[in-house]
Amino acid sequence: MPDNIIQPKILKGFRDFLPEDEAVRKHIQRILEDSFETFGFSPIDTPVLEYTEVLLGKGGGETDKQVYRFLDRGKRDVSMRFDLTVPFARFIAAHLDELSLPFKRYHLAKVWRGENTQRGRYREFMQCDFDIVGTDSASSDFEILAVMHDSLENILSGGFTIHLSHRGLLNRFLDTLGLLDRSVEVLRSIDKVSKIGKETVMEQLSALGNTEQAEAILSFIEPAEDNLSTLKKMETASGGPSEDSRRLEDVLSFADETGIAGRVLLDPAITRGLDYYTGIVYETFLDDLVSLGSVCSGGRYNNLASLYTSQEIPGVGSSVGLDRLLAGLAELGRIDFQNPQADVLVMNLDETLIGYYHALAASLRKEGLRCEVFHEKKKLAAQFKYAEKKNIPLAVICGEDEKKRGVLTVKDLAARKNYEDLQPAATAPKLRELLRKEK
Amino acid sequence: MPDNIIQPKILKGFRDFLPEDEAVRKHIQRILEDSFETFGFSPIDTPVLEYTEVLLGKGGGETDKQVYRFLDRGKRDVSMRFDLTVPFARFIAAHLDELSLPFKRYHLAKVWRGENTQRGRYREFMQCDFDIVGTDSASSDFEILAVMHDSLENILSGGFTIHLSHRGLLNRFLDTLGLLDRSVEVLRSIDKVSKIGKETVMEQLSALGNTEQAEAILSFIEPAEDNLSTLKKMETASGGPSEDSRRLEDVLSFADETGIAGRVLLDPAITRGLDYYTGIVYETFLDDLVSLGSVCSGGRYNNLASLYTSQEIPGVGSSVGLDRLLAGLAELGRIDFQNPQADVLVMNLDETLIGYYHALAASLRKEGLRCEVFHEKKKLAAQFKYAEKKNIPLAVICGEDEKKRGVLTVKDLAARKNYEDLQPAATAPKLRELLRKEK
Repeated sequence: MPDNIIQPKILKGFRDFLPEDEAVRKHIQRILEDSFETFGFSPIDTPVLEYTEVLLGKGGGETDKQVYRFLDRGKRDVSMRFDLTVPFARFIAAHLDELSLPFKRYHLAKVWRGENTQRGRYREFMQCDFDIVGTDSASSDFEILAVMHDSLENILSGGFTIHLSHRGLLNRFLDTLGLLDRSVEVLRSIDKVSKIGKETVMEQLSALGNTEQAEAILSFIEPAEDNLSTLKKMETASGGPSEDSRRLEDVLSFADETGIAGRVLLDPAITRGLDYYTGIVYETFLDDLVSLGSVCSGGRYNNLASLYTSQEIPGVGSSVGLDRLLAGLAELGRIDFQNPQADVLVMNLDETLIGYYHALAASLRKEGLRCEVFHEKKKLAAQFKYAEKKNIPLAVICGEDEKKRGVLTVKDLAARKNYEDLQPAATAPKLRELLRKEK
Repeated sequence: MPDNIIQPKILKGFRDFLPEDEAVRKHIQRILEDSFETFGFSPIDTPVLEYTEVLLGKGGGETDKQVYRFLDRGKRDVSMRFDLTVPFARFIAAHLDELSLPFKRYHLAKVWRGENTQRGRYREFMQCDFDIVGTDSASSDFEILAVMHDSLENILSGGFTIHLSHRGLLNRFLDTLGLLDRSVEVLRSIDKVSKIGKETVMEQLSALGNTEQAEAILSFIEPAEDNLSTLKKMETASGGPSEDSRRLEDVLSFADETGIAGRVLLDPAITRGLDYYTGIVYETFLDDLVSLGSVCSGGRYNNLASLYTSQEIPGVGSSVGLDRLLAGLAELGRIDFQNPQADVLVMNLDETLIGYYHALAASLRKEGLRCEVFHEKKKLAAQFKYAEKKNIPLAVICGEDEKKRGVLTVKDLAARKNYEDLQPAATAPKLRELLRKEK
């Protein structure tokens, strides 16, 4: 490589997306957006860069070390967002007067974390968040569950289970054990049970309290034979019925009534590592690839905007981990989304006819067909190869003689079959008929 | 405001988008994507952060001072992309082996420049690029023009004009004047004629050469009565027919044949300030707001990837300035895109029926209706107000008695008209009928 050539490399943990992959990503993003909108969620957007103080607050948490942070040219301390939740809390506080509560928004956007890269972990990745703020109701907790269900169902057609639990109920239980002041450590330990195994968690929990307490916790996080039995067990262990157990009961009964209960599992081991959850919490696993981790997680946070406003704003929300979901689908061989990059290629037989080819293509586009013209006078074999690489199923062929006679040939490229001497009016219907056969 | 509250402010030149605005932005982005795809363009994506050397090369241009550049935690010199063209050139060089040429891609994404903020200029803004690389043909030059035309037509339904010219032809003309070595300065001066006026340009040009040369240039950039006359005039002034004038002739004749010539103006004053254009150049103006500047610009660049590869890769492309276009449409009062954030609100009359309401909503969603449930037991007036603020046109009302009788009421909120005692099977058809009336 000559000296003056710059190597076209990209940063570790960052990715280019070629058309085949990006088309799948966009397709799934559209399914998510459409799903969110059927529930009346609206899109918002916020800046990629924010004041560091706004994103990180005044303290220094675990995330801080991963943040892309720098001084801009105006010597402002700025950071790239590391999630969509903190900017959303800032957004809510900034626009409270303009929004009508309850406010339901979705936001699909990239975030950045300078993490160590590993399978399914990148430094630049997409988050797909949906939240309801301004109401602390079982109805809104359930709606988030329903949106999780429907959007994943629309992408996956089954094969997933949404696990849920309640942080308040877990805290009540820890209180009966006398371990409430160690709840953060207990949560973090439980959260890892599927990764590090029961024995290691048992050791960690015994170190936090004693062996009996550790055993009680491990027994608490074990689901019973069905959701109602699990609920009963959690209720008893946490000192009897409470508003938290009633909340879980309501949400589970709404799931029954709407017919989605079959995909919902009450699982007391679900805690979510993050500090800001205060109520119900959700995680979602692919049935055939549980080891991938959760592909859609969330929960209730009732103090999120408190950094930016003294007004209390309860909220509940969840987020689809698009990159992880796609990695999982690829691993399971379940990305079968066909991606023809156009329907029809108008072949280039005669350079003097290029204007005619473009007019032909324009008329086919008006009929709803995705159509391109081959730009250069090359051998037909090269043009067919181009169509094959782009997965274009059909071609339109027209030479000087056919143009004079006002007809053309449609070629089904996979079947290698020609339909000759078609009149212009018959072309689009023929192409559509062949496209339907392809599918 | 208490001491521990952080002010939820955002950086100058950056913006939040509330649902009303973001829904319009998303709507227009989808029109663009769909338009690009009807021509067989495919989506790609690239990282927001790149090595600074990759984005800025080894030199230091005008743009460099505006770039958000910093050392990451691994002490790498990194920058946020300031356009989508340079990353695209890097992408092409990096993936040449995987792509089939000609390669047609589109990319809608944010870019960042630390510019001084002014009307329609922001530090974070969207670019919507579409390019064809791997062919230097009149057909591909024309296709970019056709995509510009169709995508803007799909958004605006007319009211715009695409101006085009040819950098090579201008250079030939400057060569006949003996001013080829000053071409960059001449281009920059001409480029500003609509902003700073002919007299100032005349002064600048006279300073570059002499008064006669300045007059000749000003005469050259004046369009004649129609495109062909302008072409003839440019051809003559540039020393007679050349491949550049033939290229313009071809592109104009293709525009004629496809019926889009009425929106195309051959305008020798169009130069595009940027250095990398080598052939045809495009700018687009709203007929009723020319002063806004170009809302879709581009041209041919035949050496773009030369920073990253010794292989020659000709290209042609254009970019819609989404933020400027939206600012223009707002100024013209032409954003009339209706944005109801849901079709139907299921009212909350009885907290014991919430599961039933959610089941009702789920069944309406299955019928293709965007439907939400009001989460809290509030007065009906508050619920109606919520629907009004979100521009939701219809409501479903059902109390204990109606539930028992298996019926419900549909309310047309604008007409304040009730349709009572509807059977479940009759509900979705009634709602759809009323929605059609709304439109």
